[in-house]
Amino acid sequence: MTLPDHDDPIFALHRGGKMEIASSVPLADAHDLSIAYTPGVALVCEAIAADSELAHEYTWVSNTVAVITDGTAVLGLGDIGPDAAMPVMQGKAILFKQFGGVDAIPVALDTKDTDEIVETIIRLAPTFGGINLEDISSPRCFEIEKRLIEALDIPVFHDDQHGTAVVTLAALINALRLTEREFDEAKVVISGAGAAGVAITKILHSSGIRKISVVDRQGVITPERDDLNDVKRWLADETADWAKPGSVSEALQGADVFIGVSGGQVPEEAVAGMAPNAIIFALANPTPEVHPDIASKYAAVVATGRSDFPNQINNVLVFPGIFRGALGVRATQISESMKLSAAEAIANLVGDDLAPGYIIPSPFDPRVAPAVAKAVTDTARRDGLARRPY
Amino acid sequence: MTLPDHDDPIFALHRGGKMEIASSVPLADAHDLSIAYTPGVALVCEAIAADSELAHEYTWVSNTVAVITDGTAVLGLGDIGPDAAMPVMQGKAILFKQFGGVDAIPVALDTKDTDEIVETIIRLAPTFGGINLEDISSPRCFEIEKRLIEALDIPVFHDDQHGTAVVTLAALINALRLTEREFDEAKVVISGAGAAGVAITKILHSSGIRKISVVDRQGVITPERDDLNDVKRWLADETADWAKPGSVSEALQGADVFIGVSGGQVPEEAVAGMAPNAIIFALANPTPEVHPDIASKYAAVVATGRSDFPNQINNVLVFPGIFRGALGVRATQISESMKLSAAEAIANLVGDDLAPGYIIPSPFDPRVAPAVAKAVTDTARRDGLARRPY
Repeated sequence: MTLPDHDDPIFALHRGGKMEIASSVPLADAHDLSIAYTPGVALVCEAIAADSELAHEYTWVSNTVAVITDGTAVLGLGDIGPDAAMPVMQGKAILFKQFGGVDAIPVALDTKDTDEIVETIIRLAPTFGGINLEDISSPRCFEIEKRLIEALDIPVFHDDQHGTAVVTLAALINALRLTEREFDEAKVVISGAGAAGVAITKILHSSGIRKISVVDRQGVITPERDDLNDVKRWLADETADWAKPGSVSEALQGADVFIGVSGGQVPEEAVAGMAPNAIIFALANPTPEVHPDIASKYAAVVATGRSDFPNQINNVLVFPGIFRGALGVRATQISESMKLSAAEAIANLVGDDLAPGYIIPSPFDPRVAPAVAKAVTDTARRDGLARRPY
Repeated sequence: MTLPDHDDPIFALHRGGKMEIASSVPLADAHDLSIAYTPGVALVCEAIAADSELAHEYTWVSNTVAVITDGTAVLGLGDIGPDAAMPVMQGKAILFKQFGGVDAIPVALDTKDTDEIVETIIRLAPTFGGINLEDISSPRCFEIEKRLIEALDIPVFHDDQHGTAVVTLAALINALRLTEREFDEAKVVISGAGAAGVAITKILHSSGIRKISVVDRQGVITPERDDLNDVKRWLADETADWAKPGSVSEALQGADVFIGVSGGQVPEEAVAGMAPNAIIFALANPTPEVHPDIASKYAAVVATGRSDFPNQINNVLVFPGIFRGALGVRATQISESMKLSAAEAIANLVGDDLAPGYIIPSPFDPRVAPAVAKAVTDTARRDGLARRPY
């Protein structure tokens, strides 16, 4: 590790932290102060004390999301701790504002204990309208999210799971459409059984795909294996009708779709065995599981997580609009149906321009967040999960 | 409680919550995103992981203060809960930015348990450069602050105590100067033994005043009383050399200074017994312990907490500059000496304009926060409490 070059444009940009708090009301004289602060503010406090619903009108809470980490699974860097995770949380926070108009607050916790993380976030709940969990390592992330969803009546969303799953499904809908495959019949191999792999398996299953094999470093995850933790056992059971024991190369023989969310490398000869007109999503950052130049030799559609290749599968297409929609109607949760409708909305924006190099909109397409938000609010209302039904 | 009038200017101003998050970097295209977020941000994370000191340069943490409450002692409204406390926390947050350039984040906790509040804030510590405790009821506020100061190496400041104490001392320095009294010889009666009363007693004692009586509803607090909790016992011991048992009227006989931070009322006949050219600070809001019109009949100097009378004793003169200074040098704490120097700096700004109606600068005097910040940083450096010594 060399010392940072303080003139490097990346460090220069990060100096001071990329974001700030801004007042949205005047504070120029005693009159302003008497309205925004004491004594005027007491009227608002008393009104909320009498009717807590008014907090959603007269504070910023309902437009606010905590971007919370314990620093254990930051990007591909692993457990680098809460201090070092903060630049990512701040980056995420400004993307929330830029793309979704959501006020997001970066929160870095000085504990890795599941119980402590859960109880801390529950105690913080009056401060926020939603909770975006970020870069918390697997398998703790699953239990933390599950317990928070049970305990809280505000949206809780682990973006490394569901943001990735929603945008992957959106891209897959269009890739299967482009290669003229029957959606439900697609044979899919997912490499990686962490947060993203589990959530992708879940959302593909929810959307009707049944021919799924999930592989980790030891090969395909099947019930026969005796080295599975609870999460991998769930994956094995969920895919048991289709997945057969074997290596990633064996799993890829004749497969239509490869989705890499592992960070590992897949050899060219394994990819070579896929079905004609295959679909390869090699999403590891910065080094895709299969380099796009190799993948293109065998696949009709190639996507990565990188901005310097076509078809970037980027969570920023998802989380701003999902929370914009969920907060807008004060949804009690972000349900599986809301996620599916978000994926469909993103896929549909591509429309007639669908092409091998354009299966997913650009992160800068201004239609994305509003379309996702609308899909989410419509679904929340339909399913009775919207507390603001108008 | 009537329903709020949504056209009322106070409610209109509070709609949406008075504040927002703002990005301070461009996010207009893929290049911007690759620097502010992935993959560029990883460089900054790695640098901080290798040297945690860099978090102070390349995140907003060192410029950030949490304004934390449990909603138990909000303004004069009492225990109205965390939701209803939020408008005050947000008001405070925007004052921090406006007057001190500090990014403050309102935090409302869903627990009143002392242990839980302490451990929650400790776990949140990597998120903030300082902790401003707010509107937490007495006597829990004392233990919470004490334990946090012991556990954390960042400034922890309970503004209801110390902000009030510092600005009161500043005003008193000038009031005693104006009435040509020897500072150390002043006979002071403090009405109220809550957060503010305790902190004022402490800071007056630190600054050399020894003739102090503190009164609560039962009269002067002295060691003879058998109804004292730990805090009042401390007050009784601290003032034992001077205070004598009796009523507030008896205590005020011949007293030079009355400082009201109780919310109770003091009868005119009690005030009438004070020394000639008395000093009356009736700080309860919105109803001063003695109405300024009555107080002026007996006192040479009258101050209140209100903006519609002369000499407003307002914490906003203190907390923005205190934190601006403490964060600027990364002070490990806000020491008693730093508070004393802040009070002197505020008092000195009045200078030759000192008059019965001008013993304290206006909250809008632009010299205040810089002067307080400079006094605090100088003192922190002198006392070895500054981690950024340049």
